[in-house]
Amino acid sequence: MEDLSFVPDLPSGPLDVYRNTASFDWKRLKLALEGDIELLKLKYRIWHALERDPLFAHNPVTPSVEEQKRIAQKQLKRILEYKFQTKQMIIESSYSARTRTVMTINEAIQSLNPSVSVKGAIGIYLFSNALLSLGTERHLKFYEASNVNKEILSSFALTEIAHGSDARLMRTTATYDPAQKQFVIHTPDFEAAKCWVGNLGRTCTHTMLFAQLITPDGTNHGLHGFVVPIRDPLTLETYPGLIVGDMGEKIGVNGIDNGFIMFNQYRIPRENLLNRTADVTEDGVYESSFSDPSKILGAALENLSAGRIGIMQESCHSISSAVAIAIRYAATRKQFGEKDKEIPLIEYPLHQWRLFGYVAAAVVFRVYIDSFTRLYLNIVEKSNAGIKVDHLSEAVAEVHAMVSCSKPLITWCTLHAAQQCREACGGHGYLKAANLGEIRSNHEPTVTYEGDNTVLSQQTGNWLLRQYESVLSGNGVDSPLGTLTFLKDHKDIMRTKFSCTETEELKTRKFIITTYKWLICYLLKQTHDKLDSELSKGLTRFEARTKTQVYKCKTLTRAYAEYLSLVFCIESIDKKEDSLKPVLNKLFNLYGLWSLDSHLVELYQGGYGNGEALARLLRDGVMELCGELKGEIVSVVDALAPTDFVLNSVLGRSDGNLYQNLQKTFFNHPGAFERAAWWREVVNIPPSKL
Amino acid sequence: MEDLSFVPDLPSGPLDVYRNTASFDWKRLKLALEGDIELLKLKYRIWHALERDPLFAHNPVTPSVEEQKRIAQKQLKRILEYKFQTKQMIIESSYSARTRTVMTINEAIQSLNPSVSVKGAIGIYLFSNALLSLGTERHLKFYEASNVNKEILSSFALTEIAHGSDARLMRTTATYDPAQKQFVIHTPDFEAAKCWVGNLGRTCTHTMLFAQLITPDGTNHGLHGFVVPIRDPLTLETYPGLIVGDMGEKIGVNGIDNGFIMFNQYRIPRENLLNRTADVTEDGVYESSFSDPSKILGAALENLSAGRIGIMQESCHSISSAVAIAIRYAATRKQFGEKDKEIPLIEYPLHQWRLFGYVAAAVVFRVYIDSFTRLYLNIVEKSNAGIKVDHLSEAVAEVHAMVSCSKPLITWCTLHAAQQCREACGGHGYLKAANLGEIRSNHEPTVTYEGDNTVLSQQTGNWLLRQYESVLSGNGVDSPLGTLTFLKDHKDIMRTKFSCTETEELKTRKFIITTYKWLICYLLKQTHDKLDSELSKGLTRFEARTKTQVYKCKTLTRAYAEYLSLVFCIESIDKKEDSLKPVLNKLFNLYGLWSLDSHLVELYQGGYGNGEALARLLRDGVMELCGELKGEIVSVVDALAPTDFVLNSVLGRSDGNLYQNLQKTFFNHPGAFERAAWWREVVNIPPSKL
Repeated sequence: MEDLSFVPDLPSGPLDVYRNTASFDWKRLKLALEGDIELLKLKYRIWHALERDPLFAHNPVTPSVEEQKRIAQKQLKRILEYKFQTKQMIIESSYSARTRTVMTINEAIQSLNPSVSVKGAIGIYLFSNALLSLGTERHLKFYEASNVNKEILSSFALTEIAHGSDARLMRTTATYDPAQKQFVIHTPDFEAAKCWVGNLGRTCTHTMLFAQLITPDGTNHGLHGFVVPIRDPLTLETYPGLIVGDMGEKIGVNGIDNGFIMFNQYRIPRENLLNRTADVTEDGVYESSFSDPSKILGAALENLSAGRIGIMQESCHSISSAVAIAIRYAATRKQFGEKDKEIPLIEYPLHQWRLFGYVAAAVVFRVYIDSFTRLYLNIVEKSNAGIKVDHLSEAVAEVHAMVSCSKPLITWCTLHAAQQCREACGGHGYLKAANLGEIRSNHEPTVTYEGDNTVLSQQTGNWLLRQYESVLSGNGVDSPLGTLTFLKDHKDIMRTKFSCTETEELKTRKFIITTYKWLICYLLKQTHDKLDSELSKGLTRFEARTKTQVYKCKTLTRAYAEYLSLVFCIESIDKKEDSLKPVLNKLFNLYGLWSLDSHLVELYQGGYGNGEALARLLRDGVMELCGELKGEIVSVVDALAPTDFVLNSVLGRSDGNLYQNLQKTFFNHPGAFERAAWWREVVNIPPSKL
Repeated sequence: MEDLSFVPDLPSGPLDVYRNTASFDWKRLKLALEGDIELLKLKYRIWHALERDPLFAHNPVTPSVEEQKRIAQKQLKRILEYKFQTKQMIIESSYSARTRTVMTINEAIQSLNPSVSVKGAIGIYLFSNALLSLGTERHLKFYEASNVNKEILSSFALTEIAHGSDARLMRTTATYDPAQKQFVIHTPDFEAAKCWVGNLGRTCTHTMLFAQLITPDGTNHGLHGFVVPIRDPLTLETYPGLIVGDMGEKIGVNGIDNGFIMFNQYRIPRENLLNRTADVTEDGVYESSFSDPSKILGAALENLSAGRIGIMQESCHSISSAVAIAIRYAATRKQFGEKDKEIPLIEYPLHQWRLFGYVAAAVVFRVYIDSFTRLYLNIVEKSNAGIKVDHLSEAVAEVHAMVSCSKPLITWCTLHAAQQCREACGGHGYLKAANLGEIRSNHEPTVTYEGDNTVLSQQTGNWLLRQYESVLSGNGVDSPLGTLTFLKDHKDIMRTKFSCTETEELKTRKFIITTYKWLICYLLKQTHDKLDSELSKGLTRFEARTKTQVYKCKTLTRAYAEYLSLVFCIESIDKKEDSLKPVLNKLFNLYGLWSLDSHLVELYQGGYGNGEALARLLRDGVMELCGELKGEIVSVVDALAPTDFVLNSVLGRSDGNLYQNLQKTFFNHPGAFERAAWWREVVNIPPSKL
């Protein structure tokens, strides 16, 4: 057994009651959820280092937006100085191991200050990855300056004021001028200004710009990537020809300086075009290695997959922190009870039901994303190394479909979890010091950025429908990763009927997976039939698709994402040590039934079950699992939670001394007991006679 | 027809397309939703006055928490100086009319700065109402100083650190000392400190304290109300013997100075006990007009009903503002389309489905709460005037049951609406300037304060169960307001079956109300049977009740609240002018079916319907209504929205010039184009060679 003494023990206290009942060692579970002891050590090393660094001290009062930007930039600089990723790690390890190290560092920092992890992810890693995949040798100098020497900070300029989701219609142009051998970047009007560009508002020196490439003959070759200098790295002054501004305050992540930019006939060298997939000769002739320009765009944007995986990893951290706070509060906060004998909130079935499903989701998601990331990196690594991957393009399509529904599932679930956790902590949860508000606000943009969840999941829908249509027409399923292979048996699957008579039959992998397969087949048929019927009325495919989203495609892609998280989780659980399997299986079953609960209408509507037993047994199963997990749940969140310093919540400290911690926070709040400095301005009034 | 020229016309522009298709005059709808032309005029008078007052100018950058408190206090002072409620209004009008005026002023201010309306509501109105209902002549001086002369500002100290929902176990004591003829207030420890007291942190001069009254013989007579001086009104210095602190930053409403307080043997005059229901003689003998101390508490806390009604009114404003922003954005933001012909988001069925249900909810809630408030005030007015109200105590119980489920329904729905609206505005919705973040954060505490929604709705559950048990045992239903009279027919109702074959049959009052009646009867039976079965296992009533909440009592109380809003709405629609009835009926039907959608599982489980038609027709009905309302919805939100100044959203301005407004906001943002003042601190790095 690995030595886990580097994970600090938890202080004894009021939480012991619910810790002593756990069937497992929380540190073993923590390791199992992290997946790799070296990465777990790295995370703790980072957290301990930053806890000792005054620059990372928590501020009880939210600093001004401008100050948050300053802090984030300074923290990023400091983190790079720490060199958590050592030279040795870079040299000795594989691409896959290297990337997982960077991801781990990113996660560790995100749970402390999400603005800083985003700054680094955009400013260095997204930029340098894009250089590697879209650029050529001539862009290595940028790679060196960014990823190796950290001399420059970048940003990623794609979204425009009037176009976000539909990248095709973006209007920023890069017109080639053969006389000067330069591209002339231009923004026709404010609606075409690039916006929401993280790091652009105040700090970046370069941007990775996506603009319509136009050759001297007037042909538009579609969106291409360019490296564009923005600020003098010595002075941070923006260059002439640019209107660069900060977008101002947002709901959260205000440490990020999101900016907008308009180019006024702004010139950059020809070589700044990222030319792996296409180039423009000195004379202005466009040469592409792809024939279809939309494929070029696809290759360029596929880079975003890694970003979306990063968002899912960060979401797993956010949901873990949120449930850790709420569960520890629930175990220490007492209210009502038999006569005057008060009981902790965690004893109430309603409170268990409000929270435990999210704890199970946090565990299932974490296990899923860990497995999925390995699989993804493995494909990329092989492909980069020129090793043949069978059915590569089909695999890429499947990965894209998986990411496009999993990011919505996980980010939305985390958002709802954070909100539920805040409410489950009552009024005290509304304190900034509880940290649930910030976890929520900082997480929130993930549901609309890097692909709006609603739009993104439609891409999964399209892939699923293509597979279904292929099966109907007698061809196979293109699912090299095997996530949809079962579709070939859709006729048999659709004949499945609910026939359980006891909750024990439902609290099983078999029931959960079988039911999901039925559900996906049913929703595919519903969506496909609706699409067909709309098309037969003479609607275009675009129009018809808009009419199949609600109650159909939308539900389908969510069910498929839930199914993915469950099947990946099963595979992973079976490899974990035996002592953890009972609790992991219970959490798996809870997440499965709790998720199926939201699909009961379809199960009834499609005739999978009828009569009252289906809903009753499924819901009884959920409640039984909640009860069975009551004695485990505090140790589960101990395994999910970061250190107290990182969690930074007065309600969620691991010592469980709820009221002592609240008192300390209130009494130490700057100026808590002072008379308001502005008292003279408000004691209007004729002196009271009282 | 009333002259509505005081409501400014809306500017012509891009929204005209969707305004011209409306079947009604939006100003007539606005009046209908307000319910009273004088109150509507008053609202516009307030909004226009404050728009011209620099103290109420919007700040593009969120001020520090301390500054927000200063501003809120100064704004409150200024509002009182405006005397929007004239002497004449006070003299000439009835209690009911007076209260509605105060409520209207409160709503008008809440939509501009919720901290100010809360400050006033707690500091003046809650205090003076409590004095009237719990105090006697000897407290008139406080009433004069507060409500008439505005010399003092109060707060309301009930919640303690360790007890919020369960008021019985609060531990602050008020022990009578006959020697000095004083009450000695004492806080045993930090857990018994009063907390979350709005206005207490920095500004109030007095508090309305609830403490356990103990007579010299050592008897604890339960919670009683006391007027307790906190600060010298001349200097705002707190008095010796008090530890008074500000609780620090919260997720929202940071203009409110929530405070905590610990009393150290703090003495107040005997006369400061609010003695309408009980008193202590000079010698220390307790004399009560009620025999049961819990009833005294009940009478004291029933005052909170008015506060909860106020919260519902404010929620109606918040949901109206949120949907107005999102709908106007949806009508002006184009994305995707047939080839390159982009269409506005509002054309997408999925987008309609995401938003229109909340628009319908905003209208139904507003109509419901307006009717309900009149009814409530009517009862209170009669009761105060000594006019006999038939079955008064049963009516009070019914009102309490209605409030206790409606406040959860409306506050939760508003919270979800604000979140959905923010997401439906994509990335731009994440801007502070969109105002959706603040609407959401400021609204959020309502779901856990003035009675945590989860706990509060259980009180409705208890009332409903009592009525059901009464019917089962052959007695009638105690429902003087008639909201549950139908329960006597529960056997017939339970025999109802779904038998529709076309969506037109579902888009009717008859279907919606019939189905809700079935649903309530079914859920009552489910809840009651579960309770019985748990009791028969030997569980106590407390334990058994905890096991009937999830999927049962919780769903029941929500269904009952939805039903209430629908039946009150029907009655009200029938009194509106004819030109508005078509759109109001469509909105009613949409809200009804959209809400029933979330109960489909119960409709299947209980055998109301089986087979696929029920879910299909109901959901098709929802989508059809969305389509039918597309041409109406912009005018509906015009009727719901306040003025642009009050709405304060760059995405929701009534001129519909989305991108011009965004440009102005970005370009005018303070310091948008400036180099960061801290640039020297971050240009670390050896100068780049690029």
